[in-house]
Amino acid sequence: MAPPLYQTVINSIIAQIAAGDLLPGGMLPSETQLAHDIGVSQGTARKALMMLEQHGIVRREQGRGTFVTARTPESSLFNFFRLRPPDGRVIKPKVLEERIARRAATPIERETLHGTPTEVIEIRRVRSLLDRRGVMETSVISVDLFSGIERRSPLPSALYVLYQQAYGIIVLHADEAIRASVASIDEATSLNVKAGTPLLRVERLARDVLDRTIERRHSLYLTEDLSYMVRLD
Amino acid sequence: MAPPLYQTVINSIIAQIAAGDLLPGGMLPSETQLAHDIGVSQGTARKALMMLEQHGIVRREQGRGTFVTARTPESSLFNFFRLRPPDGRVIKPKVLEERIARRAATPIERETLHGTPTEVIEIRRVRSLLDRRGVMETSVISVDLFSGIERRSPLPSALYVLYQQAYGIIVLHADEAIRASVASIDEATSLNVKAGTPLLRVERLARDVLDRTIERRHSLYLTEDLSYMVRLD
Repeated sequence: MAPPLYQTVINSIIAQIAAGDLLPGGMLPSETQLAHDIGVSQGTARKALMMLEQHGIVRREQGRGTFVTARTPESSLFNFFRLRPPDGRVIKPKVLEERIARRAATPIERETLHGTPTEVIEIRRVRSLLDRRGVMETSVISVDLFSGIERRSPLPSALYVLYQQAYGIIVLHADEAIRASVASIDEATSLNVKAGTPLLRVERLARDVLDRTIERRHSLYLTEDLSYMVRLD
Repeated sequence: MAPPLYQTVINSIIAQIAAGDLLPGGMLPSETQLAHDIGVSQGTARKALMMLEQHGIVRREQGRGTFVTARTPESSLFNFFRLRPPDGRVIKPKVLEERIARRAATPIERETLHGTPTEVIEIRRVRSLLDRRGVMETSVISVDLFSGIERRSPLPSALYVLYQQAYGIIVLHADEAIRASVASIDEATSLNVKAGTPLLRVERLARDVLDRTIERRHSLYLTEDLSYMVRLD
């Protein structure tokens, strides 16, 4: 099934952002110009711009034009990293260890990741929070979408900023399933705690602006001093 | 400090909904009529209606008028109860045990609950999910806001529907802090598991349409078969 036409426009704009042809703060062509350049109707161009605005990728200013907004490391961290101290302030996790491997996709990875990849890249990291080991996370992404990412190691702390800047993939949503568990011996060693220490176990599916599942992530959080904080509406 | 005028309008409308004078699906007076009835400017009435609409309490239909939307037990459950089986479907927890007690507020309760209450009502419940004990929760609310609630026992499964229908208090937001822990001997007995079983421990502050903290809730969830599911944007 062909994607709707406005997605073609969205893809084109995101590709330009990813390639650095459109910089954060930079102005986009007008609706009319955009429609002409890409060969779609003005209504289709308008719909694409509205969706990009809804997702916070562009900002329209009355009488001035449409501008690229940036997904900064800070906003990415704020949205997708929910561990906070009791006062709720945002803290930045540091990467202590990183291992990147290319391997065959498991059946569930092939089934859920966009493009049904046969090969994936697995990024395992141990992070510290407030100067203490607190997070073990494993991100799994498709080799096809993230070609050559293993050669960029060490990766930046905020992976989603890299996904956007280097691959034009903008993560907008994540569904997380959270469970309580206790540390296995291996996990306890990595996190420098006793086996049997309570841990939050979080399974994430991250989706991009085109609603494609582009990452599976498994995280273990030590929640002695920090909590996973969420607002329900 | 006096509340802003539009909050007076919001309060008045919510009180009418709570009293049953405005039923779900019922039409509200026009902006002009509302402004006249309550004695505020039309701009103030408009602001109040806009806020009620933003919060999903009323729905405005072009050319027809403004109507009360219902917070059904289902929508309340969907928003504020996040435990789901792997397929993500909404399941309804049943109440197995309920104990309601009136007691002095602790310092933190007095400090955080609206109206700095000296006395509170504590509602402790054990719930089952998929025919198995899975949740222990303790809700603490102010005696002043929820006068006589203890005489309504057994309370309905969805407390927030009762808060709205009997007290005119509409819960719209909840901040939750989630940690992993293991069951104490008492908790294990209540949930019919072994001491040391991993449990999610969730502290909630629930706020109403006027942004008042009206409930503190502490929940323990067994997450062997179910996960706490959340969407991040």
